[in-house]
Amino acid sequence: MHSWIDGLPADAIALQSRGLAYGDGLFETIGVVAGRPSLLEYHLERLALGCQRLAISADHALVRAELCRYAQLLGDGVLKLILTRGDSQRGYAAAAGAAPRRILQASPFPAYPAAHAEQGVRLFACRTRLAEQPLLAGLKHLNRLEQVLARNEWQDPAYAEGLMCDQSGRVIEGVYSNLFLLKDGVLLTAGLARCGVAGVMRAALLDSAPDHGIATQVRDLTLQDLAQADEVFLCNSVYGLWPVRAFESLNWSPGPLTRKLQAIARTLLDT
Amino acid sequence: MHSWIDGLPADAIALQSRGLAYGDGLFETIGVVAGRPSLLEYHLERLALGCQRLAISADHALVRAELCRYAQLLGDGVLKLILTRGDSQRGYAAAAGAAPRRILQASPFPAYPAAHAEQGVRLFACRTRLAEQPLLAGLKHLNRLEQVLARNEWQDPAYAEGLMCDQSGRVIEGVYSNLFLLKDGVLLTAGLARCGVAGVMRAALLDSAPDHGIATQVRDLTLQDLAQADEVFLCNSVYGLWPVRAFESLNWSPGPLTRKLQAIARTLLDT
Repeated sequence: MHSWIDGLPADAIALQSRGLAYGDGLFETIGVVAGRPSLLEYHLERLALGCQRLAISADHALVRAELCRYAQLLGDGVLKLILTRGDSQRGYAAAAGAAPRRILQASPFPAYPAAHAEQGVRLFACRTRLAEQPLLAGLKHLNRLEQVLARNEWQDPAYAEGLMCDQSGRVIEGVYSNLFLLKDGVLLTAGLARCGVAGVMRAALLDSAPDHGIATQVRDLTLQDLAQADEVFLCNSVYGLWPVRAFESLNWSPGPLTRKLQAIARTLLDT
Repeated sequence: MHSWIDGLPADAIALQSRGLAYGDGLFETIGVVAGRPSLLEYHLERLALGCQRLAISADHALVRAELCRYAQLLGDGVLKLILTRGDSQRGYAAAAGAAPRRILQASPFPAYPAAHAEQGVRLFACRTRLAEQPLLAGLKHLNRLEQVLARNEWQDPAYAEGLMCDQSGRVIEGVYSNLFLLKDGVLLTAGLARCGVAGVMRAALLDSAPDHGIATQVRDLTLQDLAQADEVFLCNSVYGLWPVRAFESLNWSPGPLTRKLQAIARTLLDT
């Protein structure tokens, strides 16, 4: 399906784009099932928060309408929305009149091995550590060199994801997913006030888990927390939930709470 | 003058550019005088270091040749080179066959007030602090949201630049320049192993100063170092050197060593 810029078919973006020059913008990667964007409200909420933090004044009603129209035409697949601050001449100062640009791109659902969701995945230990920047933490912005460096640390397909820590060695997230631990029945995930991407599936699971009798806790996590976890899993808004079965010398089996949350994630994506 | 992509005139770049998607690339902003790129070897050296750190396999002889040809056609002005990792489908993993793209853009020399170089400038105190990321420190990469946030903290033209500290409060640099202090005849600037952009004028001044009898020292700098400095200045590869005359309650007059180094910077840009 053709990409759109500001609602019109386009293949290319102006070289004056601040998205290219400075990574000055945000993005959302959204699963689309039968013409419907999954977890839409969560995606739009994160985007709005990003616009607020970066002072990008987007027309959110227009973004929503355009995104829904594009998803309907797409049918099934992955929709990527990039929202840049717009175009400008050279220089970090944003032009007063610059209008944010909306870019929509489509791709097929990735063909992940079924075993990832069924038996679980092996995590690579990334040496690339996340920098601590409270002003950008949680946002899905276009400055993603850390993820590029981390993802390119391994080529072996035996690893489906990589684990990223922050500069102090706290456990934060996967390269393109969030990480959850289960310990004594409580669902744990890292706080993202200093770094990391606050994934929409992470948010949806944290919201849903208590309704299913699973208590949640968001706090700093250490490698020791990981080692002592009863169950471990990853999630994102495209594949849902993958159990983690191995990280370095540690091994886990997909447990009952992981399976319960996996079913919840599937429902969240499909309804 | 028309922009080029990979040696050919172009206005726009493919939406698949990893430069847009992730800020996955590097740039250089180069002054061009009478068809000659100033500080060319320094720019190419920093670019090569960036390519090495990011594992971008550029054809450096081609980059140089193209850049020199473009500069010759430009005559006088500012040349901006963006080197991206190339294009790819969605996902942080770099495509095996992706060819880096070379983008060249021209703009006129900015019309800075003559007073900036003559009487010096006033520095704004940016609240945006630089994150510490040793893997990216020093590079002029395309992930520049921190600079965008910092530059947009002030609109008052009374401030020509902003001072940026790291997360621990160490004094690092300007938003688009490097900062130097003079104390007891020694030229001091911040070490950039954790964050910051290693400007080419900074490198050239550190190389040249000893030949003119000025000792240099690169180390961590505090706000107290700044308060106790005899002279303070900024430099970059477009405007050369601007004395700093004020920062919050602190005031300086452009001193003799600043003037000496300003003349050196001018020579570095013009020859």
